[in-house]
Amino acid sequence: MKFLRYGKAGAEKPGVLDAQGAIRDLSGLVGDLKGDVLANLGALRGMDVSALPLVEGPQRLGPPVTGTGKFICIGLNYADHAAESGMDVPPEPVIFMKATSAICGPNDPIVIPRGSVKTDWEVELAVVIGKTAKYVSEADAMDHVAGYTLTNDVSERGFQLDRQGQWTKGKSADNFGQIGPWLVTPEEVPDPQALKMWLRVNGATKQDGSTATMVYGVRFLIHYLSQFMSLHPGDVISTGTPPGVGMGQKPPRYLKAGDVVELGIEGLGEQRQDVIAG
Amino acid sequence: MKFLRYGKAGAEKPGVLDAQGAIRDLSGLVGDLKGDVLANLGALRGMDVSALPLVEGPQRLGPPVTGTGKFICIGLNYADHAAESGMDVPPEPVIFMKATSAICGPNDPIVIPRGSVKTDWEVELAVVIGKTAKYVSEADAMDHVAGYTLTNDVSERGFQLDRQGQWTKGKSADNFGQIGPWLVTPEEVPDPQALKMWLRVNGATKQDGSTATMVYGVRFLIHYLSQFMSLHPGDVISTGTPPGVGMGQKPPRYLKAGDVVELGIEGLGEQRQDVIAG
Repeated sequence: MKFLRYGKAGAEKPGVLDAQGAIRDLSGLVGDLKGDVLANLGALRGMDVSALPLVEGPQRLGPPVTGTGKFICIGLNYADHAAESGMDVPPEPVIFMKATSAICGPNDPIVIPRGSVKTDWEVELAVVIGKTAKYVSEADAMDHVAGYTLTNDVSERGFQLDRQGQWTKGKSADNFGQIGPWLVTPEEVPDPQALKMWLRVNGATKQDGSTATMVYGVRFLIHYLSQFMSLHPGDVISTGTPPGVGMGQKPPRYLKAGDVVELGIEGLGEQRQDVIAG
Repeated sequence: MKFLRYGKAGAEKPGVLDAQGAIRDLSGLVGDLKGDVLANLGALRGMDVSALPLVEGPQRLGPPVTGTGKFICIGLNYADHAAESGMDVPPEPVIFMKATSAICGPNDPIVIPRGSVKTDWEVELAVVIGKTAKYVSEADAMDHVAGYTLTNDVSERGFQLDRQGQWTKGKSADNFGQIGPWLVTPEEVPDPQALKMWLRVNGATKQDGSTATMVYGVRFLIHYLSQFMSLHPGDVISTGTPPGVGMGQKPPRYLKAGDVVELGIEGLGEQRQDVIAG
């Protein structure tokens, strides 16, 4: 199933896609897509989606989950991307955090922060936690997944790398975390390590990869992260980006107002963002 | 005024200290201490606290604010602490994030994570944001403060420094973020840069400093952070620790089950934590 949230920012309602790709209103059936609702999405499997109210007309999409307590990212998790960044593949995962206040809808604009000259893109597979995970084994890790989604881990490379330690500084601006369009439940993603992914800027392909070349896969990452912190329903883990970011172009190519970024992952939908000045 | 939250973890109620240091129940007057309530604490100034219901008996204290979207920390913000960590004072602030899931009450135990041999303490002054801050000037920065509180920025030095990049990994375990006892409003803290602070382990003083030796002060930090991300009501900024952490002892001295940690900041109250195994 493909869950989503639609409506104005901060006032989204839960929905689900029907067989024709139209939005059906879920708000009569469940609360917002967070916490316990995420823990119990399985109960909605097999429901008659076509019996739900049809949502007419074009709708803004919000992030497909809310109540996200942590927006955790994995760094340098594709060997080729590490190489283009001038860094080695780490012997164990690199973890960093984006501010949850960076989260926005999948087609909301990328806002270049004031003083930025190195705003960059990163298409990523994200995992949404559905059940609290603490010291979980690899064997049990996938039981904690509510579903998968697409993220653009927008990054300011100067803030991240040239402004003193810790990447958080370049990862956390408002509208630096487009999530969605959908939360796709695991039965529709039989192998999260075999998904094509791509990103285009103004129509030109910049990233063209697959989750198959991820160094540390989803199952291991959930296990690994749960040794360092508890994961809770609604937490988002963005699993790293394949090669082709702006910093890795020769010469580097960063985003400017007026650019259009489009990205997608096989089975998880697409995003489209206008780039605007902050 | 000194606001607090009391009761079982996850079911705390808002309260306020009266002139005798007893807890008065605020729940009939305001919702929980988050979001808009924090933005409007000023409206409670001058209220007759003694007219509120008295809360009888011993009470567990929770963190004095909730709905914390970001738990932001400043690294190496005391010159002597940077020296004992073998690092230079950075030319601009180092920012990192603790997981919000690490937040607990001021006297809740420190839980040593599995596999840890380097769990350490850090007494810190924290600022709680009361009003959204984005690109604020230094002149206006203090208008965004709801109040001040005390934090123990518990840290696992092996996870933080020896397990691949980015400090988040060593800062985010459950019960690694004791906050409280109180949210003390700004009129009771005329100068946040002149507060004595201390920490003891098993009765022996380990940290004995003052916010006067902070490198980047509260006013600058709010301005600075707001250039990189929006700050929202309930966000907590922990401003760094003075010398005397376990890592800096010769030889290093880390926490073990059975230890007792006590810490305090002048005017902001005290914390006491039992150290237990996870």
